[in-house]
Amino acid sequence: MIAITLPDGSVKHFDAGVTPMDVAKSISEGFARNVISASFNSKTIETATPLTEDGSLVLYTWNNDEGKKAFWHSSAHILAQALEELYPGIKLTIGPAIENGFYYDVDFGDKTISEKDLKEIEAKMLTIARGKHEFSIRESSKEDALKYYKEQNNEYKVELIENLEDGTITFCDHDTFTDLCRGGHIPNTGIVKAIKLMSIAGAYWRGDENNKQLTRIYGISFPKQKDLTEYLELLEQARQRDHRKLGKELELFTFSQKVGQGLPLWLPKGAALRERLENFLKKAQKKAGYEMVITPHIGQKELYVTSGHYEKYGADSFQPIHTPSEGEEFLLKPMNCPHHCEVYNSKPWSYKDLPKRFAEFGTVYRYEQSGELHGLTRVRGFTQDDAHIFCTPDQLDEEFKKVIDLVLYVFGSLGFENFYTQVSLRDPEKPEKYIGSLENWDKAEKAIISAAEAKGLDYKIEYGEAAFYGPKLDFMVKDALGRSWQLGTIQVDYNLPERFELEYKGSDNEMHRPVMIHRAPFGSMERFVAILLEHTGGNFPLWLMPEQVTILSLSEKYEKYSQKVLNLLENDEIRALVDNRNETIGKKIREAEMNKIPYMLIVGEQEEKDGTISVRKHGEGDLGTMTPKAFSELIQQEIKKESKEFNV
Amino acid sequence: MIAITLPDGSVKHFDAGVTPMDVAKSISEGFARNVISASFNSKTIETATPLTEDGSLVLYTWNNDEGKKAFWHSSAHILAQALEELYPGIKLTIGPAIENGFYYDVDFGDKTISEKDLKEIEAKMLTIARGKHEFSIRESSKEDALKYYKEQNNEYKVELIENLEDGTITFCDHDTFTDLCRGGHIPNTGIVKAIKLMSIAGAYWRGDENNKQLTRIYGISFPKQKDLTEYLELLEQARQRDHRKLGKELELFTFSQKVGQGLPLWLPKGAALRERLENFLKKAQKKAGYEMVITPHIGQKELYVTSGHYEKYGADSFQPIHTPSEGEEFLLKPMNCPHHCEVYNSKPWSYKDLPKRFAEFGTVYRYEQSGELHGLTRVRGFTQDDAHIFCTPDQLDEEFKKVIDLVLYVFGSLGFENFYTQVSLRDPEKPEKYIGSLENWDKAEKAIISAAEAKGLDYKIEYGEAAFYGPKLDFMVKDALGRSWQLGTIQVDYNLPERFELEYKGSDNEMHRPVMIHRAPFGSMERFVAILLEHTGGNFPLWLMPEQVTILSLSEKYEKYSQKVLNLLENDEIRALVDNRNETIGKKIREAEMNKIPYMLIVGEQEEKDGTISVRKHGEGDLGTMTPKAFSELIQQEIKKESKEFNV
Repeated sequence: MIAITLPDGSVKHFDAGVTPMDVAKSISEGFARNVISASFNSKTIETATPLTEDGSLVLYTWNNDEGKKAFWHSSAHILAQALEELYPGIKLTIGPAIENGFYYDVDFGDKTISEKDLKEIEAKMLTIARGKHEFSIRESSKEDALKYYKEQNNEYKVELIENLEDGTITFCDHDTFTDLCRGGHIPNTGIVKAIKLMSIAGAYWRGDENNKQLTRIYGISFPKQKDLTEYLELLEQARQRDHRKLGKELELFTFSQKVGQGLPLWLPKGAALRERLENFLKKAQKKAGYEMVITPHIGQKELYVTSGHYEKYGADSFQPIHTPSEGEEFLLKPMNCPHHCEVYNSKPWSYKDLPKRFAEFGTVYRYEQSGELHGLTRVRGFTQDDAHIFCTPDQLDEEFKKVIDLVLYVFGSLGFENFYTQVSLRDPEKPEKYIGSLENWDKAEKAIISAAEAKGLDYKIEYGEAAFYGPKLDFMVKDALGRSWQLGTIQVDYNLPERFELEYKGSDNEMHRPVMIHRAPFGSMERFVAILLEHTGGNFPLWLMPEQVTILSLSEKYEKYSQKVLNLLENDEIRALVDNRNETIGKKIREAEMNKIPYMLIVGEQEEKDGTISVRKHGEGDLGTMTPKAFSELIQQEIKKESKEFNV
Repeated sequence: MIAITLPDGSVKHFDAGVTPMDVAKSISEGFARNVISASFNSKTIETATPLTEDGSLVLYTWNNDEGKKAFWHSSAHILAQALEELYPGIKLTIGPAIENGFYYDVDFGDKTISEKDLKEIEAKMLTIARGKHEFSIRESSKEDALKYYKEQNNEYKVELIENLEDGTITFCDHDTFTDLCRGGHIPNTGIVKAIKLMSIAGAYWRGDENNKQLTRIYGISFPKQKDLTEYLELLEQARQRDHRKLGKELELFTFSQKVGQGLPLWLPKGAALRERLENFLKKAQKKAGYEMVITPHIGQKELYVTSGHYEKYGADSFQPIHTPSEGEEFLLKPMNCPHHCEVYNSKPWSYKDLPKRFAEFGTVYRYEQSGELHGLTRVRGFTQDDAHIFCTPDQLDEEFKKVIDLVLYVFGSLGFENFYTQVSLRDPEKPEKYIGSLENWDKAEKAIISAAEAKGLDYKIEYGEAAFYGPKLDFMVKDALGRSWQLGTIQVDYNLPERFELEYKGSDNEMHRPVMIHRAPFGSMERFVAILLEHTGGNFPLWLMPEQVTILSLSEKYEKYSQKVLNLLENDEIRALVDNRNETIGKKIREAEMNKIPYMLIVGEQEEKDGTISVRKHGEGDLGTMTPKAFSELIQQEIKKESKEFNV
């Protein structure tokens, strides 16, 4: 008999040799039908693996990440079988599960395949799936495994096996197919009911561009056809809301090959949008006692040696800038903190002066490989809504809580209501990764958790996710499509004050080190605007809209009246434009709808005569006629309602 | 007989051998007494040089730059004589006139001198001056000149003579003193009535740090003691208003050795001041139809190769930034224009869309040798209030005039009422210095002059002062101390549109090149703030003041009432602070005066009881008691009066 501990802490006793699926069935037949993978003592196993000792068992369904991983990994096996059957002689390499689905990298030899072949492969995969073939793990000696793949002339698998540490080598068999595999499969192929192969890409063997280029086939699979349909609809929605697409359509930003990849150029409407966001935060920050500073975008290499950034990022980032004489070396600033430490150091402080809160919309530059760049979410230059709070250790808890208030205000004003937080602490097993004393780390970690508790945040702790200089609290926001984004970060730092020898005179007349808090509610202006675009689909809150109103004249005859309406709105600080082009009103409305202008005001003969306007709301249609003044009041009220003041 | 043409165009006839002084006397004895130097056919000569051919003669007095140059150059001879008499055996090198005064570089051998020796040297110089010794020029063969200085063991003069092109070598004699000299002296030493030796510095022979370090003595001299007194007073005023001194006292900006020389850090009060200036210009620009954009601070090297900036600045500026992989090369942007060209190129334009006016407060970086750096006026990174107007050739004149209107508005709002303009055109003798076609240059130069005429500007034309890419109009502003600063620049550019292949579709449906105007009314935020500081001595216009009001409580008892007054003022958007410290009211007033706070409101028992405040104005004193509301209205009116709206 062995003792099996389940996740709820209950312990059940079974004969040795019991399988995870047997355990599942002992709980309930219904539950067992949903179980698709398992782990024992934290090691992934098959649901048919016999258990021979006491231990902890976790059973996974499709609703667990682990379950999905087994599902998609198993689907990769099915893809590989289908490919072998359709294209005999190809060489398989690796086929893992990924965040959404799976892929397989294949050497097709002389053959080439294209997107139009994917339908046929999908069909073959579904046929295999319907066979309900069981996955089973088989152990092999290294010698036998090598022999098997050498006979097949598969140098990739041979290389993989040769690089494996000595120990058990396992194969996974199903139907007529065999693959080198560490395990972690669903019980049988029949659980896979829906398959979609998404795309074909090139990929170098082992990711090394000196190696041969293989063909990578991406796919995704589901236990129900309905799940696939929903997934593809979500993908289409995401495509429609892709910030790169919307950014281009709404003329918010652009990229130039000449200026360089990953370096956004903000076009007038985008720059105005960003300025409104910045002013919104500036106003709240001013209320919260922040002071703006402005610092350069470069600094001497020594500055970042002092801060530790050079040691951490130097080799992988933009390389030093040399001067034509005098032998100086500068770096593009990867972070604003060293500069703000020097601002702090520009004069002596007393405890009565603290906290000092220095804020800057500081543009920083970090090298990313071109393949990693993605619209505004992964760039090489971005502007952080950065601030550093220098306070006494006694003020830390209070300041941390105030920052949480500010972050919550920002999210609330921008329609992000669904979020949780992550407390990132040290990896307790790798203390060498972090700079700063153990004592200070302990203090900082406690301060964050205490503030998160006090503010009633929904938080989870992740070990090993802290920055190298301090622990942090990150806000993970869910957007309208249910996707999670990291937005807003607050970090405690006992380390930079040491490195920059920051000081203040205490009430005891002795010199002390202040504590530093780094924080950025938006994170970066680029990333935030991208996420806001995808979250709102370009239908920003009215107060943020580049163009709130467009005045559409029925013909050029009403230009003068249109201008009069425009002046009235502009006097009330409403952002409006007149569309006086010689186009049909239908076309003007369609374009305004496409540009997501919240309000369209139509003016023609009747309106001019009555001194009114016909109001149309984006996505809602006709709101009837009213006077320009009444409309102005309406829209002002709407703006006031959605953009609340920050109260400290 | 020879014919002498005078500057007024009149021609007089004299016997050959007549001297400039003779000509002066022929005009009037009174005038002749003031004549101190002369030029003949554009060549500097002595006032005693006999004229032997027809030509144009200009006679200079102390009021001409040329006259001052001769005066100070002659004073350098007097300094050299005094030094030889006081320190026999020293070696003289060179002693030119400079912008304000003169210097002499001397090898003192084993001797050293210090600032405290300057009094004695001055006294000796005055004794020599009073001797009224005439300066006279004497020709010499190269051989004789070399022999003379070799006997004196003066290797410096030997080197100078050896490097002279063959031709006439001249010495200048006065009293017992002789010096190698090209000429251009006042008639005699007696004209020099007042002398002040300013400082001693080290200077390498020929400015090369590999050479021996010499001792440089700076001095200045005047024809009247009163002039010297006034000059020294002005210097003291300038020292008091030095923006580096005021910037530190008012906590506007700082520099950090760790961040790097010439890279200003804007402290909270400075950043707020700068933001107000930026918002002021943004508002006017918005009215004038500008659109803000935001572009990165780096660009690929190729971008600046395309623009021509790399060819022009590459070798002498910050060197390229390499990436750790992918072999890309970036440069810190030395100018914003290439980026704005790429913004323009992000979509196709029709003539109906133009002009497009893209504005950006764009921070640029240019290397300057550390010895050239000076506070905020000469830095390595600065933010231009930049904009580029893209228009059709037909719109150029009109746009240029609009820009002039904007510049004049900016100057008027900031109290710079005294200015002239300079039209910088090509050096007609060096066409190879400029990029772009002759035809385009002609067009551009005409457009500037026509706009300057139309706006009735006081302008002078300077040949050879144009930028390499186009001609320009610069505004030279006189500050409160009478010093001239270049502020505000407008440049026409036909060249970058070619290089970036900018286009628009004309009414003829053909593609055309737009014309570009570069403009920056402030020039750079750094330089402008420095000049504004020196112009106003830190007493900025009220609307610009970091802190407009300080509320001084007579004791901590009145903290609550102080806060009430503060809230009222803040509601009216007046920038105020409360000084509740436990200090005497006298000390609080003194500190507020030193910090140049325009208004001090004193609150004590009586004021709290009456609901009033006692108002004190900076530099003026007591204004009596009034209610906070009455004060708020008073100050709001003052602000409104001085910050007028920009009307387009």
